[in-house]
Amino acid sequence: MKKYNFSPGPGILPQSVIEEAAKNVLDFNGSSLSILEVSHRGKDFIAVAAEAEQLVREIGGIDDRYAVLFLGGGASSQFAMAPMNLLADGEKAAYVDTGTWANKAIKEAKLFGNVEVLASSKDSNYSFIPKGYEIPSDAAYLHLTSNNTIFGTQLHEFPQSPVPIVCDMSSDMFSRPFDIEQFGLIYAGAQKNIGPAGVTLVIVRKDLIGRSGRKLPSMFDYRNHADNDSMYNTPPVLPIYVMMLTLRWLKANGGLTGIQKMNEEKAAILYDEIDANPLFTGTAAKEDRSLMNVCFLPTKPELDEEFQKMVKAAGVDNIKGHRSVGGYRASIYNAMPKEGVQVLVDVMREFAKQNG
Amino acid sequence: MKKYNFSPGPGILPQSVIEEAAKNVLDFNGSSLSILEVSHRGKDFIAVAAEAEQLVREIGGIDDRYAVLFLGGGASSQFAMAPMNLLADGEKAAYVDTGTWANKAIKEAKLFGNVEVLASSKDSNYSFIPKGYEIPSDAAYLHLTSNNTIFGTQLHEFPQSPVPIVCDMSSDMFSRPFDIEQFGLIYAGAQKNIGPAGVTLVIVRKDLIGRSGRKLPSMFDYRNHADNDSMYNTPPVLPIYVMMLTLRWLKANGGLTGIQKMNEEKAAILYDEIDANPLFTGTAAKEDRSLMNVCFLPTKPELDEEFQKMVKAAGVDNIKGHRSVGGYRASIYNAMPKEGVQVLVDVMREFAKQNG
Repeated sequence: MKKYNFSPGPGILPQSVIEEAAKNVLDFNGSSLSILEVSHRGKDFIAVAAEAEQLVREIGGIDDRYAVLFLGGGASSQFAMAPMNLLADGEKAAYVDTGTWANKAIKEAKLFGNVEVLASSKDSNYSFIPKGYEIPSDAAYLHLTSNNTIFGTQLHEFPQSPVPIVCDMSSDMFSRPFDIEQFGLIYAGAQKNIGPAGVTLVIVRKDLIGRSGRKLPSMFDYRNHADNDSMYNTPPVLPIYVMMLTLRWLKANGGLTGIQKMNEEKAAILYDEIDANPLFTGTAAKEDRSLMNVCFLPTKPELDEEFQKMVKAAGVDNIKGHRSVGGYRASIYNAMPKEGVQVLVDVMREFAKQNG
Repeated sequence: MKKYNFSPGPGILPQSVIEEAAKNVLDFNGSSLSILEVSHRGKDFIAVAAEAEQLVREIGGIDDRYAVLFLGGGASSQFAMAPMNLLADGEKAAYVDTGTWANKAIKEAKLFGNVEVLASSKDSNYSFIPKGYEIPSDAAYLHLTSNNTIFGTQLHEFPQSPVPIVCDMSSDMFSRPFDIEQFGLIYAGAQKNIGPAGVTLVIVRKDLIGRSGRKLPSMFDYRNHADNDSMYNTPPVLPIYVMMLTLRWLKANGGLTGIQKMNEEKAAILYDEIDANPLFTGTAAKEDRSLMNVCFLPTKPELDEEFQKMVKAAGVDNIKGHRSVGGYRASIYNAMPKEGVQVLVDVMREFAKQNG
């Protein structure tokens, strides 16, 4: 049965990427060797890593003032590496608290400097994105989380900031255009929009590398990774390869403007249904609704089991909401086809018809 | 053409593992989803991670006093994480310098405490393993590198140590039996014997976790990974899956005693040829020769091109030596079949016959 993967992450990948990956697991580039067993120093894999970097630069409009890194250890490691590298002892960094992941980033930063939390929507269970806060010009950077996977909120407009923005884009990376000029550092675990689990994309303005002046372990110092084209140590070969394939797919699908249009269409179909359907209600403030993670609650929770059964029968996979919010969460990342969203919406309509 | 992958790492994987991995990249466990896009919180992947841990425990004889962790970031991150977690400020750790990787481990440890280098074979280009050094009983631990990939030397007997041994087993993990009682911490990048690049196996005695008393970033603290079954953050899903498959293969091939026998046989075939063949000479001291990485030099370097051509024609891939040693290096990890070694030896004989 055809399945539609609404998983919050690791999440859906394009079918063509999956097929190409499987083929190269058996035989990488016709070498008779698997991509799982080739040296990262071999010319075929060096070409893969170079193409991945080139695609990131082309798709994102990232020029040479920025280093593009592919790191292991997950975006959670970046919660610490960002302040380790960018925040000097005694300095202050500004954070905005928009949910679970922002909180983790704040916790790690406190180990390395002073943290000023400019705003938080915690009191309303992170159902909106705080706005209108003042950004101190003496902060080393402003840290933002562009999309909050758990709460289904998204920053639709980045604030004008007097200091570089450090942004965790793990769950909406390359889902829409952005202006790199606003950012000092962007990091994103690949496993939502740009690849499989096991690699994190880091884009860092070169003049900020070494800013903290701290003597860091080699692996936690952006300098070493930048100086060695992300091959200071053995990189996560297969995850980088699949990321490269996913970026090829993204480019072929119109790049960021093309994918933004698709993502807006998909989200509109689903949010329109939530707003029209008496059996569901959205959880996030309308102006802050995420185009990636659509969170909604049942108005008749006693019918949950029936809804889940119908959803499952239609091939809709993994729409259970996070325990912090409850209800349902449909993650509709770049690779989710419009058809998948339509299948979910059709079930929601049929469900309302049967129980209206 | 059939190829024999002698790469020093990422290195050869069993063909059955590669085929099973490719199948599950297309369709994981019959779920209609790819292993590349499934949630690490789904029951099917939790079962994979649990089986991988169980196999590590069963194969290695690792009981519950030890935590078994699967981490991203590579073994190079462990060069820092080991002292971060185990070495308190002002304390001393003992290191033995047996090559490039041991050196890197020493460099990172110096950031966190005092390092006493007990012995080094640097002056002879690391062609042997120092022995007979005294291990200070006031050290927090003794750090060893069990196999030196670049120089082709291996520690065939671990010293009796009054302090826990911390061992980088990246390039000979699970290639032979060992007694876990001697170790406080073992770490190994998967990409030689136990899986693909992108995951590092860490086995740490639970009572040593937190020993340094240092307040660490969450991702660099073994405690968080141990408390969360290596799912504190999104783990490298595919690399862990392929590691699990490789461990299944290892178990089916007789576990550590079975694989040791095979590894000894393979190494003997190759070293016997090196010692008998007038056109080659081994680089490592005989008693310290590695069963994993067989390094040898040509006695007539002017014939190198011809040898390389013959080797290539036979399907032997990637035997170029590391620039620090030169010549040739045949990496014959667990998954290298005896047949592959025989093919290389046959070429060496034919080469000698033609040029004798």
